[in-house]
Amino acid sequence: MPLSTAEIASALADLVGSDNLVTDATHMGAWLNEPRKRFHVPAAAVVTPPDLAAVQAVMAWAHAHGVAIIPQGGNTGLVGAQVPRSGGEVILSLQKLDRIRSLDLAAGVMVAEAGVILETAHKAAEDAGAMFPLWLASQGSARIGGVLSSNAGGVNVLAYGNARELTLGVEAVLADGRLYRGLNALKKDNTGYDLKDLLVGAEGTLGIITAASLKLYPLPEDYETALVNVASPQAALEMFQLMRQRAGARLNAFELIPWIGLDFQLRHNMLDRDPTASASPWYALIELTRMAGTAPGALQSSLEAAFEAGLISDAVLAESLADRTRMWAFREQMSECQSREGASIKHDVSVPIAAIPALIAEGSAAAEKLVPGIRPVPFGHMGDGNIHFNFSMPLGADPKAFMAEFDEAMHEAIYEVVLRHGGSVSAEHGIGQLKVDLLERVKDPVALEMMRAIKTALDPKGILNPGKMLRAAP
Amino acid sequence: MPLSTAEIASALADLVGSDNLVTDATHMGAWLNEPRKRFHVPAAAVVTPPDLAAVQAVMAWAHAHGVAIIPQGGNTGLVGAQVPRSGGEVILSLQKLDRIRSLDLAAGVMVAEAGVILETAHKAAEDAGAMFPLWLASQGSARIGGVLSSNAGGVNVLAYGNARELTLGVEAVLADGRLYRGLNALKKDNTGYDLKDLLVGAEGTLGIITAASLKLYPLPEDYETALVNVASPQAALEMFQLMRQRAGARLNAFELIPWIGLDFQLRHNMLDRDPTASASPWYALIELTRMAGTAPGALQSSLEAAFEAGLISDAVLAESLADRTRMWAFREQMSECQSREGASIKHDVSVPIAAIPALIAEGSAAAEKLVPGIRPVPFGHMGDGNIHFNFSMPLGADPKAFMAEFDEAMHEAIYEVVLRHGGSVSAEHGIGQLKVDLLERVKDPVALEMMRAIKTALDPKGILNPGKMLRAAP
Repeated sequence: MPLSTAEIASALADLVGSDNLVTDATHMGAWLNEPRKRFHVPAAAVVTPPDLAAVQAVMAWAHAHGVAIIPQGGNTGLVGAQVPRSGGEVILSLQKLDRIRSLDLAAGVMVAEAGVILETAHKAAEDAGAMFPLWLASQGSARIGGVLSSNAGGVNVLAYGNARELTLGVEAVLADGRLYRGLNALKKDNTGYDLKDLLVGAEGTLGIITAASLKLYPLPEDYETALVNVASPQAALEMFQLMRQRAGARLNAFELIPWIGLDFQLRHNMLDRDPTASASPWYALIELTRMAGTAPGALQSSLEAAFEAGLISDAVLAESLADRTRMWAFREQMSECQSREGASIKHDVSVPIAAIPALIAEGSAAAEKLVPGIRPVPFGHMGDGNIHFNFSMPLGADPKAFMAEFDEAMHEAIYEVVLRHGGSVSAEHGIGQLKVDLLERVKDPVALEMMRAIKTALDPKGILNPGKMLRAAP
Repeated sequence: MPLSTAEIASALADLVGSDNLVTDATHMGAWLNEPRKRFHVPAAAVVTPPDLAAVQAVMAWAHAHGVAIIPQGGNTGLVGAQVPRSGGEVILSLQKLDRIRSLDLAAGVMVAEAGVILETAHKAAEDAGAMFPLWLASQGSARIGGVLSSNAGGVNVLAYGNARELTLGVEAVLADGRLYRGLNALKKDNTGYDLKDLLVGAEGTLGIITAASLKLYPLPEDYETALVNVASPQAALEMFQLMRQRAGARLNAFELIPWIGLDFQLRHNMLDRDPTASASPWYALIELTRMAGTAPGALQSSLEAAFEAGLISDAVLAESLADRTRMWAFREQMSECQSREGASIKHDVSVPIAAIPALIAEGSAAAEKLVPGIRPVPFGHMGDGNIHFNFSMPLGADPKAFMAEFDEAMHEAIYEVVLRHGGSVSAEHGIGQLKVDLLERVKDPVALEMMRAIKTALDPKGILNPGKMLRAAP
């Protein structure tokens, strides 16, 4: 028989003490209110274990009593992985495990606990003269455990990879409280199955990441950044190929932005001045890293080659930090500027890079057919094949009516195009509880069977974040 | 009751036809004789399925009858993963699945079947104007399925990663014949557990990789290569840090070679002339890629900075392809030159990069204490923390007596040092059957439990490469 909420509260108080426990629903807002205000299910309790042993103790107890546990980091996830689904769950916040355990510059590794805020990790690396190159809009509140559990991406995946590639090893508490000691600082280690990559991106359904060894990179001497006019997504694709050919791994970012994004931001006074060279239907924000040993000028010479090849029509090179900051603000405000234009329907999708022009053309056409006057705002990480394929409501539409009428149908229409091009319905944000049904429809059925078998093997009672990623066992 | 060898032969003949089957032990040499001639167990049969459906049919049959199957690629593995252990197994060679299914330059991906020889994959990429950057000594016979199943490394891991990082997705036949369709061409896809990375490096114990989507890279315009005199492993480490700081991701290789390697190769006439600038206790082979858009000279300016900082005493920059080829031959002949000096005891280990000087000093001291006059030959991928920590027998020793007396004790001594520094007892070559006992002793026990649980979940009858990686179920 499941424990009552009162029994859960009492047992947790015994385990971790009342300082590490919230049982009054009116005080749970910080852990329940997620960024998009989409999920509104209460929790049985919130527990904030003060140390690793307490995490183990909570899990051993939860396992013995069949209590569902939701691991939570900074509560910044967008698909509801970190908040309740059924209402009987306990949120286990890692926020108090917030130490940088070690930082070894020569070895190129930092061991950070799950509760370390991403920005704090950035700062620790920089203070040591290095870089942890994972930048997200939510870096001021996202925590390492959640960043890894969602395999977060961000703006520099092109050069450095996503969270998975930036992680050498993890430590994790398993469903029954056992501790997996997988921290290491090795670039090469072929001794067994890749448990690290299984836990990274598992959204807390296979184990609770409590610490990670993270790769450090040398700081570039500087960056070469430009905002480039391209006539179409196809021209942007060709420009991307040229940049890859000329810059290789120095290519740090290649972001696609449509003209409507500039229009939004200028109209809402979100930029101190126009960062572009001139009007263009599309822009590409291109950035190269330059290390100390390499002469400057690679981006400029590449832009000259692109002009000569007729790939681009105009461009502006950042000549100061202020220029670079403004160009990046233009990119980073793309989500915010949409919210000033009323309701929008969003899709975080990826396709093979070469299919981006077709994705944008076919997706926009499908949307306009469904909702005449809808305003497509596709933007994002072209270099990773990852487009935030968003749509702002038609001018003058009623936001609530627009969402109620078209949200589902738009998803159907866009995912159809994405899947037809061999793409992914969740490039960065994951599955959580939002996309569980979608995943069941679109994923290879054998892959789903393998996932269920692994889930059952590592969490036989199904207490770790049940109903996230995979449908809960009946 | 297990099937007899005759029953196995008869059933397989029905399934795949006699053209795809070898049952006469005298004709099995190509599949049984592995490179180091360390394993000598016969197989019940060798089956070479002509297509994917036949692989599935063999596995469905093997699952129904409890027949152990050993997947095999080019038979180049060094730890016995690909050859029999008990004698009752069937070797399933992927050699006939040898098509490049597709190559899309714009998407940066090539889909190769498991039986494609690595060198053939290189050639296909180059013919299309791109690069598949995984180079191994055995690339003329190693096949993609084995390369991925062993998560092979090689000389350019520093810049491009090992096989795991070079693979976007895999297709695999599971233990019961089901087909996992995980090929994709996406750089970002957060829809479910990372099954790709679980299958890569699993040595065929969780599924049989039948095809993979592999990343293509743009070809560099050229390389800048130098052979540099460094006084010690510590100086080499500092030089490595300087190169990382000045060259970042352009640093393509940083290989450490001891003077004794030059001595061996010159005495055995393995080099047309001395590739080094002058005598030095240690050398570092350093290489940068240069893409078309970047000006030449980064390596030269870095070497000048290193001279000024007193990190290096002399160096020679490759001025021709012949120079570069000779420098790389010097590195690549390190294993071969040892075999001309009699018996040697080898260890493929890694440690955090900063611990390499201590590893070499302490490991060499321990070896010399155990075997006075033993000749340490540590060399390899310093930039990855991966040293091939080899030892040639003392001058004039008897090879057989040396091996018989010291092989085990030397392993114990070196692994003790490696583990004390947080290292790995198998950086590149894997576990196979050679290191199963060792793994049980040194691996985190919870990691082993997780591995066993996953193995049982995906191969409940234990028919996929039993006794490799993990001890066979009793």
